[in-house]
Amino acid sequence: MSKTGFTLHARDGTARCGVITTPRGEIRTPAFMPVGTAATVKGMLPESVRATGADILLGNTYHLMLRPGAERVARLGGLHRFMNWDRPILTDSGGFQVMSLSDLRKLTEEGVTFRSHIDGSKHMLSPETSMEIQRLLGSDIVMCFDECPALPADRARLEDSMRLSMRWAQRSRDAFGDRPGHMLFGIQQGGLEEDLRAESAAALRAIGFDGYAVGGLAVGEGQEAMFGVLDFAPGQLPEDQPRYLMGVGKPDDIVGAVKRGIDMMDCVLPSRSGRTGQAWTRRGPVAIKNARHADDPRPLDEDCTCPACRGYSRAYLHHVFRAGEMISGMLLTWHNLHYYQELMSGMRAAIAAGTFAEFEAAFHAMRAQGDIEPL
Amino acid sequence: MSKTGFTLHARDGTARCGVITTPRGEIRTPAFMPVGTAATVKGMLPESVRATGADILLGNTYHLMLRPGAERVARLGGLHRFMNWDRPILTDSGGFQVMSLSDLRKLTEEGVTFRSHIDGSKHMLSPETSMEIQRLLGSDIVMCFDECPALPADRARLEDSMRLSMRWAQRSRDAFGDRPGHMLFGIQQGGLEEDLRAESAAALRAIGFDGYAVGGLAVGEGQEAMFGVLDFAPGQLPEDQPRYLMGVGKPDDIVGAVKRGIDMMDCVLPSRSGRTGQAWTRRGPVAIKNARHADDPRPLDEDCTCPACRGYSRAYLHHVFRAGEMISGMLLTWHNLHYYQELMSGMRAAIAAGTFAEFEAAFHAMRAQGDIEPL
Repeated sequence: MSKTGFTLHARDGTARCGVITTPRGEIRTPAFMPVGTAATVKGMLPESVRATGADILLGNTYHLMLRPGAERVARLGGLHRFMNWDRPILTDSGGFQVMSLSDLRKLTEEGVTFRSHIDGSKHMLSPETSMEIQRLLGSDIVMCFDECPALPADRARLEDSMRLSMRWAQRSRDAFGDRPGHMLFGIQQGGLEEDLRAESAAALRAIGFDGYAVGGLAVGEGQEAMFGVLDFAPGQLPEDQPRYLMGVGKPDDIVGAVKRGIDMMDCVLPSRSGRTGQAWTRRGPVAIKNARHADDPRPLDEDCTCPACRGYSRAYLHHVFRAGEMISGMLLTWHNLHYYQELMSGMRAAIAAGTFAEFEAAFHAMRAQGDIEPL
Repeated sequence: MSKTGFTLHARDGTARCGVITTPRGEIRTPAFMPVGTAATVKGMLPESVRATGADILLGNTYHLMLRPGAERVARLGGLHRFMNWDRPILTDSGGFQVMSLSDLRKLTEEGVTFRSHIDGSKHMLSPETSMEIQRLLGSDIVMCFDECPALPADRARLEDSMRLSMRWAQRSRDAFGDRPGHMLFGIQQGGLEEDLRAESAAALRAIGFDGYAVGGLAVGEGQEAMFGVLDFAPGQLPEDQPRYLMGVGKPDDIVGAVKRGIDMMDCVLPSRSGRTGQAWTRRGPVAIKNARHADDPRPLDEDCTCPACRGYSRAYLHHVFRAGEMISGMLLTWHNLHYYQELMSGMRAAIAAGTFAEFEAAFHAMRAQGDIEPL
């Protein structure tokens, strides 16, 4: 089995660019991972997702275990073959969704029992079952099973939760075993507390992982608080391994996270926005349903090379959104994912060139202009 | 402006194959036209529709006049540019949808007044306004404004309606005027009555059109009755001009119509079926929601070269349909349109080779086998 690994190519301040190597292909970092919740990035064919520049997708353990079921996916040849994506896949542990989506949860030292939000059936997730499900799915980057408390939370709750997650991290490591070609990432917890984050990082480093996530953020704390944590959390994690900020975010969140030393991110935002009529451009968000676009022959962004911008006017995008046509979500999702990957590509080039500060200034200056003037 | 025209390349019995020439490209006949109701073939990008082999799309005057509006489409450069399809477009006259979709219709010699099914706004369609709307849209093949009565209907009603449609055909011809590069098709009416169909055909031939539709079928009369009309109706129309059967149909309807001398057809069925989980294959329809597919690693049709069959198992298609994912409608619509175009391509080749009877026998023999056995 081929080796996995992480090579840093350049640093610019605390920002880094590099490559994660897996048997299924390289992941250029900083990387944005589109979310393929239930074995599809909503509204996109996988070859289109790849065409935007994505090197890796994220799959959700919680969704896939409930439908179609991990054993079924395994019988069908694994998640890559099932969803027709042969490049790397990272799966989350199910810990986050079980807290946000399922009914009748019961949390114990052993794990979490819950009822499916789809059919009410009863299930159990623990470090051991999560590792087994992610193995059945065949994911390339496996995440430890953790508990992710909503913020704000009091310090005692955060401390207990973090320590439980660290015990679960050890059990995840033990259950994962030795799987050449696959990587296991630990997840740092500790809320907004620097000392708890340090304790969590030390616990994870003592166990030893192939990469480290900053978990427990993007759960309602706001950008300022998140950046506050990112001012210290990445530095608590190993320099020579990838750092993954889970569930982030808006374009300005992403730029700020990369600036602070994050290598990987994922978020449903570009695809969810695409289905609800919101486009992300270099000048900020555009609400395509607004009447100002009804007669506008210009593309969303005249410099964008995505299919939505090359082939269609704002007037068309407005029309198909208002008419509830599928092509609305298809084109806007493609545009948004393309924009996100262009943003990542631009940051990688700037870090390699040592011009990240200029990139960041230009990014904010362009957004400060706002959308193009109405005609 | 380039010339338009119709060239017959081969006949096999009453079946014909040929080419309709337009300034926007050639249309190989027999042709199936996917329906792009509101300036989109639902669930497909136009380049994907083209990749299935479609030479021409159909657009709906009724839908487009109400939203986004014909004047707006004209301001934006016409329907081709608006929807990013640079090949031929045929637009219907609005006559059929105004009868089936709108509220508070009032039919007079002048035309039809009605209220929009979208917002209740009041509108008028007449031969003159329909020609003007289709001109604003920029369609390559314009249809006469007609009245299409539901079947069964008594003879007196059919006779009155047909004669009204023939008066409207003359007004459509007069209003259309001289538009080089664009074609105007007349529409034969007369229900299931051979003498009324003959009277209608004679009236249309006296006016003179660039093509002739067999209208007023596929409105509930059943396949046997429809084929009964198609046994005589195409022969009543000019041999050297294209014959278009409106709103047809299922694959076996299409084969039977081509056998009887039809050159063009359109139907929402392949795209609508695609969105509701029904696939059309050489072995007949497949309901992808059925539990028998949940663990089936085989494609819908192992000999099909469409993206759905090359990349995905029945199990995957079952999963994404059950999960309500957009990719379900996207893949099944692509498959269905691909299958329909393969069917047309096969019939064109068989007619050219003088083997249509063998093609038809093989078509029915394959369908008689039914879907592949469950695993």
